[in-house]
Amino acid sequence: MNATNWLRHALSNLASPDSVSAAAVRARADDILRPAGALAALDDVAVWAAGWQRTTTPAVLRPAALVFAADHGVAAAGVSNYPSDVTGAMLAAYRAGRSTISAFARIAGASIDAVDVGVGRPTGDIRIEPALTPERFEECVAAGRAAVDGLDADLLVLGEMGIGNTTVAAAVAAAHARASGEGPTDVTDWVGRGTGVDDDGLRRKQVAVSDALTRTTSITEPLDIMRELGGAELVAIAAAVVAARQRSLPVLLDGYVVTAAVAPLSLEQSDALAHCRVAHVSAEPGHRRLVTALGMRPLLDLGMRLGEGSGAMAAVPLVAMACAGVSDVPTFAEWFG
Amino acid sequence: MNATNWLRHALSNLASPDSVSAAAVRARADDILRPAGALAALDDVAVWAAGWQRTTTPAVLRPAALVFAADHGVAAAGVSNYPSDVTGAMLAAYRAGRSTISAFARIAGASIDAVDVGVGRPTGDIRIEPALTPERFEECVAAGRAAVDGLDADLLVLGEMGIGNTTVAAAVAAAHARASGEGPTDVTDWVGRGTGVDDDGLRRKQVAVSDALTRTTSITEPLDIMRELGGAELVAIAAAVVAARQRSLPVLLDGYVVTAAVAPLSLEQSDALAHCRVAHVSAEPGHRRLVTALGMRPLLDLGMRLGEGSGAMAAVPLVAMACAGVSDVPTFAEWFG
Repeated sequence: MNATNWLRHALSNLASPDSVSAAAVRARADDILRPAGALAALDDVAVWAAGWQRTTTPAVLRPAALVFAADHGVAAAGVSNYPSDVTGAMLAAYRAGRSTISAFARIAGASIDAVDVGVGRPTGDIRIEPALTPERFEECVAAGRAAVDGLDADLLVLGEMGIGNTTVAAAVAAAHARASGEGPTDVTDWVGRGTGVDDDGLRRKQVAVSDALTRTTSITEPLDIMRELGGAELVAIAAAVVAARQRSLPVLLDGYVVTAAVAPLSLEQSDALAHCRVAHVSAEPGHRRLVTALGMRPLLDLGMRLGEGSGAMAAVPLVAMACAGVSDVPTFAEWFG
Repeated sequence: MNATNWLRHALSNLASPDSVSAAAVRARADDILRPAGALAALDDVAVWAAGWQRTTTPAVLRPAALVFAADHGVAAAGVSNYPSDVTGAMLAAYRAGRSTISAFARIAGASIDAVDVGVGRPTGDIRIEPALTPERFEECVAAGRAAVDGLDADLLVLGEMGIGNTTVAAAVAAAHARASGEGPTDVTDWVGRGTGVDDDGLRRKQVAVSDALTRTTSITEPLDIMRELGGAELVAIAAAVVAARQRSLPVLLDGYVVTAAVAPLSLEQSDALAHCRVAHVSAEPGHRRLVTALGMRPLLDLGMRLGEGSGAMAAVPLVAMACAGVSDVPTFAEWFG
């Protein structure tokens, strides 16, 4: 079967979490050597990890990050402070271990694979044409799936790099709001300053997203939204999330681009993101809106707006601690008995 | 000189941060291989760490936690769900590496020293008498100072354990608000459910704090507030913060008890807590009020209410990442040059 059919098939056959393990960890959390509920959100994280890791002793011992990188035709609209060749330079920095997420990963004990799904090979300009041809969409889905299939990991961190990609993220988020009937559809609600564009740059981004939305008024199918408005790395990320689900591997999503990349999956199947947590809420105003629309509660709210998966990597130790808080601490009965 | 005189002397001779290193790291942060400002609050943490570690390459390689434990006479008022002998049991758990903060510390790569400053030797009942005699106050100051002086650390995490100590924390916080003229002084604004007391327990806590505040209406000197209303571990924590300042060692404060313990220091000298960050805001409503009154911005807001230093330990990897984000990532010039 081709990659798109794999994606559709997987989305209509989503695995459920191991509810027995999850319930056991919930019960154990309430008996642990501390007041019941004292870890609050972290106990919820432990229960979530237990369900998807399918174990009563959840742990984060092998966190792995995938950073998908690609270029975007819409960068020609002057929507970023950086030229497209920065994408390739950053890909090299990830591979050399010299980027911010590399430094974070050393502290989190995580591996990083940087996956090139279109650096120097920009997508179509979403203002005037689909981002991806059907063939290229196939290729990106296959790349996202393959990257996950090759991992030895107990927690997946997803990140991205691509000059221009907060513009396509805004387009996807706005199209998601339009298709779901939830949330505002005015482009100003979804377009932020990304890497830090000035007022003129912000207006260019708004116009670009508005043009893209006007061009795609009739597009309502989730996979079509991804192909028409997303970019290569966004499609690969969505495929990686579905591949992780097939392996029952919990996922930490990063900021605006990653969350927008996967949002259409929840239009296709409402619980498609149950194995994912949004690690942090970014400074892009659209991200908070999108996270709220998806009913997700981020762990961190630090005003970060870097991408690369850096916000998700920042939360890896918290997930590890949440798991250790139920797996490596005795209950009252174990300690006093 | 006795310990109290040491404390007064130290507070009137507070070290400043290394402003040259801090300014260099601020400038470097803006040149690092990422959009300027993209790490937001984490860049601020790196600059803060650089100033107090007195280096242009801040790092968290040897984080160390001190958990001070003691018992409280006010526990007799029925202000906790747990009997006082739980304090000693938890002290044993810290020393055996079996507590929640122990599990967190293994992930953060931190050491823990649990310091007994009065387990099984309860303080006076603050409803009717001073918590500490002058002699015992001396002893607690000396213990807090000595614990810091023996550490090999680049970041200090402060935690506490003591059945009844969210009651004394509320009393100190309310007295701090009264003495500073800032913030509400109604006990209901400062008293929360601690380990999870029911409505009756909450009322008992409110009455106990109200009685303690009525008894101490004439007390306005910061060190007197600490001695009259604090507990042994609170005084040791305040002394530890001052000892850390003498060593220019940055400090992560934990939740309500630790923050209340050190709040009076800022009445004595307004910048006494400049080398401290509040790591997280706890579920105790009084903590958020106190943090706001102190002008501090917590890194985490996860609804935790455990104590032990667990919230501060949870933030250690974030501080490590903030430092690595300026120390271990090249600038644009270094990467492209």
